[in-house]
Amino acid sequence: MTGRDGGADLSPIGNSPVVVLVRPQLADNIGAVARAMANGGLFHLRLVAPRDGWPQEKAWRNASGADRLLDAATVHATVAEAVADLHHVFATCPRPRHIVKPVLTARGAAAELREICGRDLRGGRLFGPERAGLDNDDMACADALVRYPLNPAFMSLNLAQAVMVLAYEWWTATDQTPTKTLMTNETRVATKGELENFLTHLVAELDASGFLRNLPKRPGMVRNIRHLFQRGEVTEQELRTLHGMVTELALGRRLRGRVEDDAAGA
Amino acid sequence: MTGRDGGADLSPIGNSPVVVLVRPQLADNIGAVARAMANGGLFHLRLVAPRDGWPQEKAWRNASGADRLLDAATVHATVAEAVADLHHVFATCPRPRHIVKPVLTARGAAAELREICGRDLRGGRLFGPERAGLDNDDMACADALVRYPLNPAFMSLNLAQAVMVLAYEWWTATDQTPTKTLMTNETRVATKGELENFLTHLVAELDASGFLRNLPKRPGMVRNIRHLFQRGEVTEQELRTLHGMVTELALGRRLRGRVEDDAAGA
Repeated sequence: MTGRDGGADLSPIGNSPVVVLVRPQLADNIGAVARAMANGGLFHLRLVAPRDGWPQEKAWRNASGADRLLDAATVHATVAEAVADLHHVFATCPRPRHIVKPVLTARGAAAELREICGRDLRGGRLFGPERAGLDNDDMACADALVRYPLNPAFMSLNLAQAVMVLAYEWWTATDQTPTKTLMTNETRVATKGELENFLTHLVAELDASGFLRNLPKRPGMVRNIRHLFQRGEVTEQELRTLHGMVTELALGRRLRGRVEDDAAGA
Repeated sequence: MTGRDGGADLSPIGNSPVVVLVRPQLADNIGAVARAMANGGLFHLRLVAPRDGWPQEKAWRNASGADRLLDAATVHATVAEAVADLHHVFATCPRPRHIVKPVLTARGAAAELREICGRDLRGGRLFGPERAGLDNDDMACADALVRYPLNPAFMSLNLAQAVMVLAYEWWTATDQTPTKTLMTNETRVATKGELENFLTHLVAELDASGFLRNLPKRPGMVRNIRHLFQRGEVTEQELRTLHGMVTELALGRRLRGRVEDDAAGA
C-alpha cells in the first residue's frame, strides 16, 4: 500500500505467538509472511524444512523491511522439534479431514492465543506448504484447528494472506480504536449554536435573494435545508467557509444587480 | 495455503462492493487482489489507469483461478469516472492527512458496506498505488476513509493484503460460524454416562493392578483421574478406544503375571 519501512526497528511486543511455516516452498512467500507478521505485531518465525533451504535472499527482498523477523527466524527439521517448547499449538487448516479436533474461527483462535499469551504460556500457529497444506501428522501435533470463514466457492488462500488474517486478528483482538470517528485535525466539530448561526445567515440571504419568496412553501423549504446540514458532523472551520461562500455569493448577486441596474439606467 | 482453484466458476454473491485499484503498478498485485477478493466473496474489480496497461498476463497467472474477476474488470481513466455510478465510496488510507473526513476501522467499514449493499445501493472501496497510496484528490472522491488498526511501528501493507483484510471483514460481517466447535466427523461427543462407564472400568482395572493400593490416597487419586478425562470433550469412539487400551494393558499384565507365576513355580 505504501513504501517499505526499510529495515524497520521491529521489537517483540509482549508475549506473542510463534508462526511456524511447515515445509514452505517459496522464499517470496516467507518474506511476505514476515511483512504480514510485522503488520500485526507478531515477531517469532520458525521454518520447518523449507524446500529451497535457508536463508534465501528473495525472502528479505519481499519483506519490505521486516528484516529483523527473518534474521531471527529459526529452522527446524520436524514440526515436533519446532513446537517442543510451546504450550499450545493451533494448526491452520482450510479443509479439515477426518479427525476429531476442536475447530476455531480466525477470531476465536486469536482470542485463545491472547488468553494463552496472557497466562505467560507460549502459543504457536502452524501453516502448511503452499500446495498441499498440513498433512495428518502435522495436525496431530496441534491442540486445535483454525478454519477461516471464507467463500466456500474459492478457498485457495495465499500463504502470506493466511498469515495476514492471523496477524490482523491478533492485533485487533486487543485494539480499542473506535469503529468510526471524525478526523478533524486542526479544527473541531461545530456546536449546534455555531450551526444555527450559519443557518440563520443562510436563510436571511436566501430571503433577500428571493429564493424563499413562495411563502406557503417557505417553512418546508427551510426545514429541508436544516435537515441537509444537520445530517453529518460539520466542523467549525467548514462553517466559516460556508459563511464566506454565502456572503460572497450574495455580494456577487448584489454587485451584479447594481451593474444591471446601471445598465438599465444607462 | 492450498493449490489453485483452476478457473473457478465464481459468480457474484448478492450485491457486493466494488474494489477500485487506483493507478496500480504491478500486474502481480492485481492478480493477488483478485484472488483475495474471491476468498471473501467480492467480485467487482475496477482499475484506474494501471501503470503498465491492461490486460496483463501476469495478473491471470497470479490469481490462482480467480480468472472471472479479472475477465470482468473494467479500466477507467480517472477515479471520478470509476466511481460515477456508485452511491458510497470509502478510501483505504493508512496515514490520513490533513483533511476532515470520517475514519472507519476495517470492521466498521465492512459493516457500513453491508448496510449500504443491503439497501440496494452501490458501494465501493478505493485502494491507492503500491508506493504512494491515494492522493488528496482521490480521497476527495470518498465519503469516508478506512484505516486498519495495525502495528504503528510497521504500517507497510501489501496491496493484496489490504484487499484481503477488506474481503475477510466483508465475509465475516455476516458469517455465523461458531467461534469454536468440536469436529467429530463420523463419531459424536460422548455422554456423561458413557464417560462414567469408562471411568468405572478404568478404576476397577487400576484397583486390580494395585495402582490404587494406598487406601488413604485412593479417593484423591481417583478424583484427579476423573478431572483429567472431564477436562475436554471426548468422543464416543475415543471412549471405545480407551476401553480397549485399558482391557489390553490389563490383559497383558495378567498374562505376564501368569508367565511369571509359572516361572516361579517351575
